Amino acid sequence: MASMHPSPVQRLQNFLRGRRLDGFLVTQPENRRYLSRYSAPDHGIQESAGALLIPRQGTPYLLTDSRFALQAEEESSGFLVHIYRKGLLPSLKELLPGLGIRRLGFESHYTLHETYLRLERMARQSGISLFPLAGQVERLRCVKREEEISALRESVRLNERVFQLVYNTIEPGMSEREVALALELTMRELGAEGPSFPPIVAFGTNSARPHAVPGERILRTGDIVLIDMGLILNGYCSDMTRTVVVGTPDNTFLRRLRTVRKAQQAAISAIRHGAVCRDVDRAARRVIRDAGYGKYFGHALGHGVGLAVHEDPRLSAASRKKLRSGMVVTVEPGIYLPDWGGIRLENMLVVREKEAELLNSDTTGLDL
Amino acid sequence: MASMHPSPVQRLQNFLRGRRLDGFLVTQPENRRYLSRYSAPDHGIQESAGALLIPRQGTPYLLTDSRFALQAEEESSGFLVHIYRKGLLPSLKELLPGLGIRRLGFESHYTLHETYLRLERMARQSGISLFPLAGQVERLRCVKREEEISALRESVRLNERVFQLVYNTIEPGMSEREVALALELTMRELGAEGPSFPPIVAFGTNSARPHAVPGERILRTGDIVLIDMGLILNGYCSDMTRTVVVGTPDNTFLRRLRTVRKAQQAAISAIRHGAVCRDVDRAARRVIRDAGYGKYFGHALGHGVGLAVHEDPRLSAASRKKLRSGMVVTVEPGIYLPDWGGIRLENMLVVREKEAELLNSDTTGLDL
Repeated sequence: MASMHPSPVQRLQNFLRGRRLDGFLVTQPENRRYLSRYSAPDHGIQESAGALLIPRQGTPYLLTDSRFALQAEEESSGFLVHIYRKGLLPSLKELLPGLGIRRLGFESHYTLHETYLRLERMARQSGISLFPLAGQVERLRCVKREEEISALRESVRLNERVFQLVYNTIEPGMSEREVALALELTMRELGAEGPSFPPIVAFGTNSARPHAVPGERILRTGDIVLIDMGLILNGYCSDMTRTVVVGTPDNTFLRRLRTVRKAQQAAISAIRHGAVCRDVDRAARRVIRDAGYGKYFGHALGHGVGLAVHEDPRLSAASRKKLRSGMVVTVEPGIYLPDWGGIRLENMLVVREKEAELLNSDTTGLDL
Repeated sequence: MASMHPSPVQRLQNFLRGRRLDGFLVTQPENRRYLSRYSAPDHGIQESAGALLIPRQGTPYLLTDSRFALQAEEESSGFLVHIYRKGLLPSLKELLPGLGIRRLGFESHYTLHETYLRLERMARQSGISLFPLAGQVERLRCVKREEEISALRESVRLNERVFQLVYNTIEPGMSEREVALALELTMRELGAEGPSFPPIVAFGTNSARPHAVPGERILRTGDIVLIDMGLILNGYCSDMTRTVVVGTPDNTFLRRLRTVRKAQQAAISAIRHGAVCRDVDRAARRVIRDAGYGKYFGHALGHGVGLAVHEDPRLSAASRKKLRSGMVVTVEPGIYLPDWGGIRLENMLVVREKEAELLNSDTTGLDL
């Protein structure tokens, strides 16, 4: 009897049948992990830790080299582990004919053109046709299973713990770089695989740059402190932003903070199954525009989070996509004034049938 | 009057003329930095910090987005900074015809096939032909200028300082992961951009795996400790391995250590301008084979180091390439016995006219 809940591999195999493809070569590291649970990362696209070969039916293969043999066997379930001696291409040349694969899809968004040229030569010699497919597994990954949502919840929880531990040590005289380093160190000490992106720690007017890189700027009383941070726990990412002032915030800061918070809450209220992404973005943008800061909110409202810290859906003014139950997104409106500073507030939410479920519990600086 | 020492950009332009190409698009981050000094890294190949467009003659362009505008202007010299609003492709479409570029080379080893497909469509519309070129700038990078050798020397020096600081704190009861974390933290505290690769810290029999990942294994008296580490300073990488025993090493360890050290010295003696790479590999391999450990030295002897931690030349049994003055290589022979442990010793050297110049000064555990 067929399972009621097809696995990611089964869903991919259904897709292959629909496209009349015989197999799919998966090289993107998060996609590889999603389908197989095999967690080794690539050290850059040129140092691959392996590939999956998913035939249209039957057992899929995990191909890797001997360094990863043990890990591949331990972690992947339902996959045949094939260790290549001379690299991926010779192994494919050996395996594909036996599996009857003549029409092979591959991840063109995670294959170097140079690798493609070699793959194409091998395929031509073996009578195989190649089909570039981009973002197919990513599409499956958009809607999370409950076990994935639990993993994301744990990641958010640990990220908040790290934030709170470091936040309590911040005082005038520290540099942005020092705080960022303390965040990364604490993440690792508390068991994270690492940061999901280099933490942003911006003091004073530096906070006006949405992608500020922590530098030697020293914290002074009265400064804005913007911290945007996330970590990876069991493969799943978190992402959170808080903005505070050291000492007593003035009325300008409070007014702007309340605007950003109100924008965030308006967007959250708009999130539910079936809502259109750009409408959620618009709900936040309207609040900021009405307060007179429309042109100081220059980025999209939010993005999906999962095995990657930035994935679909995008909560942007351009996206006509619809939210679906089980998607997990950030909501992170901001106001950035070059000579003054910036305020951004970011939480993570699960899209549910009727509303959004908040994954965060930290409330630092949110409601002043 | 033409400069006596052509710059990297000029050498690349000479290459373009030789190949009858009108321009070259450089996307690989270390190549970008090598040619322009612009140092922003890519966060993965899908999040590029920019590209260089080198016309056959005249001023080259650095194309990036507004987030990197300031850094691009500050760091690059001799480049026109072009900020793209809608991404790299529309900017190329705009720039190429004005520069008279009809035959464009691109880095096929650092271009996603998906990106190539879009580039190819744009090129076709504009009457431009594309030429995949792999490793061209890397070939220029092989031989270092003296200022690069100084930067590598500084990187080695800082790496040794980090090693010595952490080495003095190692004691029974610590885990591999703890030591690795201390190494990474100390690198950052002392001003490194980061590690040049995740440090390898292997205790006891774990040292028998050349690519061991630091884990929860606890150090006990009598254990082998193998540490392979490197950092990035001002863009340039270091790479060093030391192997010691906690407590008093036994005769077996001493005998094997002396064999590895003798192999290392034999290889170093073989290094000079004009020496063939595989002969240098063979010089070390012969010592290990004569001592009866031939089959326990399963990797190549060494590799080039520069802006990347692994680059050409490869000191391997297969390489017929000749060393040239100014190349910088590691020499890292090893013996790995699965049930006993491993010993690897690694130093970095500059190839000079008559001999090799050692960049290391640390002698921990080398001559017992």
